[in-house]
Amino acid sequence: MLFVPALVAGCKQIVFASPPGKDGKLTPEVVYVANKVGCQKIVLAGGAQAVAAMAYGTESVPKCDKIMGPGNQFVTAAKMLVSNDSNALCAIDMPAGPSEVLVIADKFADPDFVASDLLSQAEHGIDSQVILITVDMTDKEIDLIDDAVHNQAIALPRVEIVRKCISHSTTLKVANYEDAFKLSNDYAPEHLILQIENAESYVDLVDNAGSVFVGAYSPESCGDYSSGTNHTLPTYGYARMYSGVNTATFQKFITSQIVTPKGLEKIGKAVMDLAAVEGLDGHRNAVKVRMEKLGLI
Amino acid sequence: MLFVPALVAGCKQIVFASPPGKDGKLTPEVVYVANKVGCQKIVLAGGAQAVAAMAYGTESVPKCDKIMGPGNQFVTAAKMLVSNDSNALCAIDMPAGPSEVLVIADKFADPDFVASDLLSQAEHGIDSQVILITVDMTDKEIDLIDDAVHNQAIALPRVEIVRKCISHSTTLKVANYEDAFKLSNDYAPEHLILQIENAESYVDLVDNAGSVFVGAYSPESCGDYSSGTNHTLPTYGYARMYSGVNTATFQKFITSQIVTPKGLEKIGKAVMDLAAVEGLDGHRNAVKVRMEKLGLI
Repeated sequence: MLFVPALVAGCKQIVFASPPGKDGKLTPEVVYVANKVGCQKIVLAGGAQAVAAMAYGTESVPKCDKIMGPGNQFVTAAKMLVSNDSNALCAIDMPAGPSEVLVIADKFADPDFVASDLLSQAEHGIDSQVILITVDMTDKEIDLIDDAVHNQAIALPRVEIVRKCISHSTTLKVANYEDAFKLSNDYAPEHLILQIENAESYVDLVDNAGSVFVGAYSPESCGDYSSGTNHTLPTYGYARMYSGVNTATFQKFITSQIVTPKGLEKIGKAVMDLAAVEGLDGHRNAVKVRMEKLGLI
Repeated sequence: MLFVPALVAGCKQIVFASPPGKDGKLTPEVVYVANKVGCQKIVLAGGAQAVAAMAYGTESVPKCDKIMGPGNQFVTAAKMLVSNDSNALCAIDMPAGPSEVLVIADKFADPDFVASDLLSQAEHGIDSQVILITVDMTDKEIDLIDDAVHNQAIALPRVEIVRKCISHSTTLKVANYEDAFKLSNDYAPEHLILQIENAESYVDLVDNAGSVFVGAYSPESCGDYSSGTNHTLPTYGYARMYSGVNTATFQKFITSQIVTPKGLEKIGKAVMDLAAVEGLDGHRNAVKVRMEKLGLI
C-alpha cells in the first residue's frame, strides 16, 4: 500500500497533473502510481497552463482548492499568481526557486560519496545550487573530492549540464562545525547532507533546511525516492519559514466552541470588559443580552 | 499565565506592530499584553508601512520571517506583496477580505441573541458581511429577529456603521438543515454561528468555516476575546483551504533521515531503479557508489 499526504489527509478530490510525452501519453509508471494513490483525475498537462486549469477550473478540469508540488520557474510564477488572485481562491504549498544541495563534510567523509551527492544535485539543471562546506579539511583532502567529482561526472549521460552547474558551485572552508552550521542555517538549503563524524549528534544545530540527510549512507536520492520524507521542499531561502509538503499541507483546521450558561457566567464579564476597551459595543451587547436573559446581570 | 501561539511555538523573536493613538502612544492595555506574551520589540506603526518594515527590516525593526495577524485592505495588500517578493523572504498567515458572520437560526433561536450576533459583526465596518440563514422559519418569526436588530441597533454608538452594513446584509430562507449547511459550506464564512436546536449534533456538517460558535450562549465575541480559539481567521471564501492562525502557523517542520548500511541494502535497489526510470543517473550513481563500497553490488 502506498501512502501519500493527500490520501492520508483525507482529501475528497485528488487531481494529478503531468505533461505527457511527445506521443501524448504519460509513462505507465506514472499512471500506475497516480491510480494507486487514489487520483480521481489525471490532467495531461504541465506548466502554467495546468496550474491555471486547476486554479480556475475548466470544462474538463475540476477547480482545486490547493495546488501542491514542484515545477520550473513558469509553474512557480503561475502558482504564485493564482495564490494571490481572489478570483481563483486557491492555496499553494510554497514559493520556489532552483533546487539546492548543501553538503557539510569533514575529513572522515568518503570523497566518492561527497562527490556523488554534489553530482546528483548538479544534474537537475544548470541553475541548480551546489554548495560544499568543508570542516577543518586540508586542500589536499578537498582535492580528493574534486578528483572524485571529475571522475564520476564524465561517466554521467548529463555530463554537459553537470559541468555547467559545477562550474558555478561553491566550496567554503571553515575551521569548525559551529561555523559550518551557522553558514548552513543562513543559507537555509533545500537539501542538507551531513557527511561528518557522528553526524547524528549535530542534527539539533539545524535551524533552517528543507530535509536533512544524516551520515555517510544517506544520499539525497534516498529521500527523493524511498526514505519516506517528502520530496517537495522549500528552496531559495524559504526553508527559513516554510515546511516541505506534508500531510498537514493538505489539511485545514476549523476551531469551534460551545459556551454553556455556566461558562458564560465565568467569562462573560471579561468579554464585556475587553469589548468595551476596544469600543466595540455590539460585541459587548451580544454577551449582555445573554447574561440578562440568564439573570446574571 | 497567557499563552499565545508564537510563544507556545517557541519563536525566538516576537515583534509586535500596532498603530499608536494621536498622542503617539499605545494604550496601556496593549503594552501590558505585548509584554506579557514575550514580545521583544513593539513597532509603533500599523498599516502597509509596518508590514514593509517587518518584511525587509530597518535600522530599528528586525527583519521577520513570518508576518501574521489581521488588518485592513492596505495591510492585506502589503502582506500579499511581501509574501510574493523573493527579496523579502517572508511568509504570511493567509490572504484576507472583510470580516464575515453567517448565523444559521431556527425557530428555537432567541431573536435577541440572533440580532445581537448580526450586530456585533455589522459594527466592524460598512463592508462587513452579515448573513442570516433561517431554517424552516415563518416570515413572522423572521420579523421578530428584524425587530430585535432594530431595537438593539439604535442603542449602539456605532449605529451609523451598523445601519449601512445591515442594509446590504442578506437573509436566506431554507426548508431544512442540510440546505443551510450546504449554503454555508459554499460560502465558507469566517465566523459560523449555530443558533439551532441540538446545535452540537450538526458540527460534523461543517466543511468550510474559520471558527464555529455552537449554541445559544456562544456569541462570536466570546471567541474574539475569551474562549481560547484564535481570532485571526480566513475570510472571503479562503476558509475553504486556509486555517485560522494557530500554533503551527508559527512553526515549520524539517524532515531528516539516517540511512544505515543495512537500510541501504533494503532500499538501495529501488532507489536506483526509480532514478533510472527518471533518467537521473547522478541520483542512481549516489546510491551505486555506496552499495559498491559496501560490497552489495
